[in-house]
Amino acid sequence: MGDLITQAVEGRLFRADKSLFDRVRRSNGSPEVKASAFADLARFNALYMIARAGSGHIGSSFSSLDFVSWLHLETMRGDGLPDGDLYFSSKGHDSPGLYAVMIALGRLPEDSLDLLRRLNGLPGHPDIDTPGVVTNTGSLGMGISKAKGIALADRLARRDRRVYVLTGDGELQEGQIWESLPSAVNQALDRVTVIVDHNKLQSDTHLVRTSDPGDLERKFEAFGWHTQRIDGHEMAAIRNALSNAEAETSRPSVILADTIKGKGVSFMEHTAMTDDQFFYRYHSGAPSTDDYHRGADEIWDRVLTRLAELGITDANPTAIETGAAAPVPTGPRERMIDSYSKTLMTCAESDQRIVALDADLLLDTGLIPFRDRFPDRFVECGIAEQDMVSQGCGLAIGGMLPVANSFACFLTPRANEQIYNAATERRKIVYMGSLAGLIPAGPGHSHQGTRDIAVMASMPHMTVVEPGFAAECEALTRWCLTDNEAGAYIRLCPLPVERDFEIPADYALHLGQGTTLLDGSDTVLFAYGPIFLAEALKASKYCAEGGGPSVKVIDLPWLNRVDPEWLAETVAGLGHVFVLDNHYTLGGLGSYLALHIGALPRPPRLHHFAVEGVPACGRNDEVLEYHRLDAHSLAARIRTAFG
Amino acid sequence: MGDLITQAVEGRLFRADKSLFDRVRRSNGSPEVKASAFADLARFNALYMIARAGSGHIGSSFSSLDFVSWLHLETMRGDGLPDGDLYFSSKGHDSPGLYAVMIALGRLPEDSLDLLRRLNGLPGHPDIDTPGVVTNTGSLGMGISKAKGIALADRLARRDRRVYVLTGDGELQEGQIWESLPSAVNQALDRVTVIVDHNKLQSDTHLVRTSDPGDLERKFEAFGWHTQRIDGHEMAAIRNALSNAEAETSRPSVILADTIKGKGVSFMEHTAMTDDQFFYRYHSGAPSTDDYHRGADEIWDRVLTRLAELGITDANPTAIETGAAAPVPTGPRERMIDSYSKTLMTCAESDQRIVALDADLLLDTGLIPFRDRFPDRFVECGIAEQDMVSQGCGLAIGGMLPVANSFACFLTPRANEQIYNAATERRKIVYMGSLAGLIPAGPGHSHQGTRDIAVMASMPHMTVVEPGFAAECEALTRWCLTDNEAGAYIRLCPLPVERDFEIPADYALHLGQGTTLLDGSDTVLFAYGPIFLAEALKASKYCAEGGGPSVKVIDLPWLNRVDPEWLAETVAGLGHVFVLDNHYTLGGLGSYLALHIGALPRPPRLHHFAVEGVPACGRNDEVLEYHRLDAHSLAARIRTAFG
Repeated sequence: MGDLITQAVEGRLFRADKSLFDRVRRSNGSPEVKASAFADLARFNALYMIARAGSGHIGSSFSSLDFVSWLHLETMRGDGLPDGDLYFSSKGHDSPGLYAVMIALGRLPEDSLDLLRRLNGLPGHPDIDTPGVVTNTGSLGMGISKAKGIALADRLARRDRRVYVLTGDGELQEGQIWESLPSAVNQALDRVTVIVDHNKLQSDTHLVRTSDPGDLERKFEAFGWHTQRIDGHEMAAIRNALSNAEAETSRPSVILADTIKGKGVSFMEHTAMTDDQFFYRYHSGAPSTDDYHRGADEIWDRVLTRLAELGITDANPTAIETGAAAPVPTGPRERMIDSYSKTLMTCAESDQRIVALDADLLLDTGLIPFRDRFPDRFVECGIAEQDMVSQGCGLAIGGMLPVANSFACFLTPRANEQIYNAATERRKIVYMGSLAGLIPAGPGHSHQGTRDIAVMASMPHMTVVEPGFAAECEALTRWCLTDNEAGAYIRLCPLPVERDFEIPADYALHLGQGTTLLDGSDTVLFAYGPIFLAEALKASKYCAEGGGPSVKVIDLPWLNRVDPEWLAETVAGLGHVFVLDNHYTLGGLGSYLALHIGALPRPPRLHHFAVEGVPACGRNDEVLEYHRLDAHSLAARIRTAFG
Repeated sequence: MGDLITQAVEGRLFRADKSLFDRVRRSNGSPEVKASAFADLARFNALYMIARAGSGHIGSSFSSLDFVSWLHLETMRGDGLPDGDLYFSSKGHDSPGLYAVMIALGRLPEDSLDLLRRLNGLPGHPDIDTPGVVTNTGSLGMGISKAKGIALADRLARRDRRVYVLTGDGELQEGQIWESLPSAVNQALDRVTVIVDHNKLQSDTHLVRTSDPGDLERKFEAFGWHTQRIDGHEMAAIRNALSNAEAETSRPSVILADTIKGKGVSFMEHTAMTDDQFFYRYHSGAPSTDDYHRGADEIWDRVLTRLAELGITDANPTAIETGAAAPVPTGPRERMIDSYSKTLMTCAESDQRIVALDADLLLDTGLIPFRDRFPDRFVECGIAEQDMVSQGCGLAIGGMLPVANSFACFLTPRANEQIYNAATERRKIVYMGSLAGLIPAGPGHSHQGTRDIAVMASMPHMTVVEPGFAAECEALTRWCLTDNEAGAYIRLCPLPVERDFEIPADYALHLGQGTTLLDGSDTVLFAYGPIFLAEALKASKYCAEGGGPSVKVIDLPWLNRVDPEWLAETVAGLGHVFVLDNHYTLGGLGSYLALHIGALPRPPRLHHFAVEGVPACGRNDEVLEYHRLDAHSLAARIRTAFG
């Protein structure tokens, strides 16, 4: 699920035109050769899209593209028609590959090749607003259940079609996968075919190094599924397996397709990893400029060979001049994850009870130093958030101080009942959710953690915090680990952010109190987190430049704890108060403060800015503006509220 | 997970004294005979506790008691000591059986036999505030994960002990069970032994009729666990299996114990069910007076035989005169589930798209008429909430209108990411969570749905409602099914409640508007749901009787939608406004209204009454008063707020 943030490749990039895909399809070669050529052209375009977007999943796009191409070219009946066969990827990470196929088939406009992870473009993970996308994915483990639901609906509607679902192999660590298998057998849902893109790698590294799945064939067979295992890059094997699945009329089918992550570019293939190389480099993010060109060249060379087999000898890629990428800030940048990671290490040196748990996001959650320094106190759980949290509860029962890490969007809702269960025991467990909030906006709403406060803050014995700068992150992490007696949830922005304000000289962490970052006399704006604080500070400046009001900006990192006296003093005499939430409208800091401010003897009027509607996918600046949460919009909204 | 609400058995009940258990333990018989006698005495006391409480799980207490007795008497080392072997039940429903054992062993005071499901007594599901209880259970599927965490902590602390976990067999439908299995093998957690109480029945009926688990031995073996299958009522088999598990030093062990639900009372044993009998009658709730006496007599007869084998011939049960049970209201009572069920049926007659999904709570969610009338449009998912919700999403993709049913406490947090995923697709799926809120308070906090609004209401395209009377339930259910365009969550109180207010003659449902149930001139109290509305109305009367203030009571069934004009008019000119939440402080109606009232030009002061701290377990009246949410407490709090 990793989503490293990297830079777009600048300069001249190359893509294959739809017309070339058309020529391949119309050529006289065997279906297998045509599908292989089509798949490689799609790889070429997927690489273009990711390089241009600056972010996306190369590895699993490439491992799945042979299968996905064959399905769309040869297997699916009525593909794209209302009652035709359906295909979707449960993992959703391989979306650039799927988009490349859909564009090549003319289902999406060709210029959307330039719009990966852009506002109103092609989202980082599939969304049904994109024509042809069956269902929203990116949150793992739901695909087989959904396919069953579709098959049941088809049965009721007397619709005769098949549903093909691709899953990751790391995804099989999610309990929902196994939860979903029995009823497909009991209900004889033979129209469901699951293809496991068994590329042996998950977000960070090899499955066997993360959480060995054991004998997957035996497991699926024990669950009663028609099970096949094939080479997932061999078109003839794919063809045969799919017809075997179609011939099976009493059971659902699973095809374990042995694939290579990054297939098609030698140095991106996981099989090129050296034995001492732990991390796979092409799961997410963008390639370097050099990697892009080497990769594109290698694919194109093979494309030429394949096209020659089909009698096409005059093909050329189309060169596209991209503009310069957004300038990288040159000033010093703070990254909350780094501060968290360091503080966790420091505390773990002196507190032997601290055990860190990870759910296959080691790179993104800053746990590598911890794992290396305290291997015995590091538990890699794989993509199994529920299991991770309940293991954490068990560790706490056994006297340890567990720290459970993942992305906010997965950890807090997927394991919600487990977290609550531990909270009812008043267990001291620290949860860290990275990728919290609207930004970064490239991965799309499955990865934008804008509900995490709502699902965490109502729990008893649970304090929710988000730091706005590195020193505060250190102080809060230390407070959660050492001072606090019960559970805490630390939500973190993963991006490096240039801090353009001075930390007050007398800064110290006080439970339930905020820190004034910019003074103002007419009103106060509460905000939190580095990105939204930056917008709040700029908004205050824009207000001042625009003739008022004078807006005091307070960083309030405590999202469900407030010192009532401090709050009363802070808002005393004000007619208006503003709260900025990096979160949906309900359940964030705004609704918490509203209760406390509303209870004051003479409450001021409260204005609330938050994420309304499903978070948009796009470039960060585009999405902030879309949601009217950028500094200019905020300043305008504040001025309007003042009348 | 069912929790039917029934009546306590009145009159003379019988229990076995601890001294008799002691005599059994000191006697000269074989360990097997002693354990069997001990188990039957524990059954006798568990039946007493449940009859007296008026609620509890007979079936799984009885099926597990042979195993649980043997473990505690013969297997566990240092049982009860700080670093001794640990045992807990992952399902937690069998708590009366476990309590009976703990009391017999002197770990809990003998008078707690009278305190099942009472305030400060023994909660309906295990809680660590009860001495000897290892972990809070009742939410299913977490036990193996927790055991792994304990075993990891033991390894770190160099503590040499074993962890025994009992799971249900229905519980194996939860994905977390399978999610938790691989790492136990990968980490060679040989100290973990799982016993599956394989009694073939789950909440409502047989596993095979609910969601056939298939070949469980083969599944556990495929997951790499040391697997045994035995007769779970045969002490010698239990002994051997546990020593085999102990001898296994490289893998965790699972023992599939074939048991009989209700074992020990012939007519309660599931094997006594006739072929045409679908529902098992002794899963939860209390026995009838007649069933109690017949059951107790049968157990005692067998106890006498077993005691005679041990040379004990003078044993007698102790008779306890219980007071009269709380009087059953004689007036007409409304049950929201009934109204929901009827409306769902009516709508389904005219809308062929409606498909109802259930997660093994058919009896509690009012779906029996639906299943019988529309068998093709009824999907029994078993205890698999995540799978149910994602299947619902698939059904909606396929053009159906899915209605997913369970208890609020399980449906909304366990499947939270799945619900959100479907919401981002703007799918029209209706969710119904019964057992919503603080009351009934007997099952304890694992079953008290006091966080469901918080985890649902922040979602886009999701309306959250709770009706306060039957006509409103009908109107809201119809609105959700026919008028509303996107998702909705209906939270329902399962109890029959006497409605002691008149529905206004002009009553009609208006989106975002409430209904005045009692007029008042000084302030307004917003509330919802039958139980809390009843308390609110009484509180208003108490205020009036006590000299003021005059409190208008408004039923506001819309928990995250409000008509701003209506709200502004309703609170105009008021200095104080009160909101009563059948929910935790954060995330309920209070924090929603606080945002909207706070945004008014001259906001009144807002006072909020909600569930603070983990919900207490007990009799409903006890628990309302404990949380200061009964009418008298509310009236006092309102008067205090007025100063």
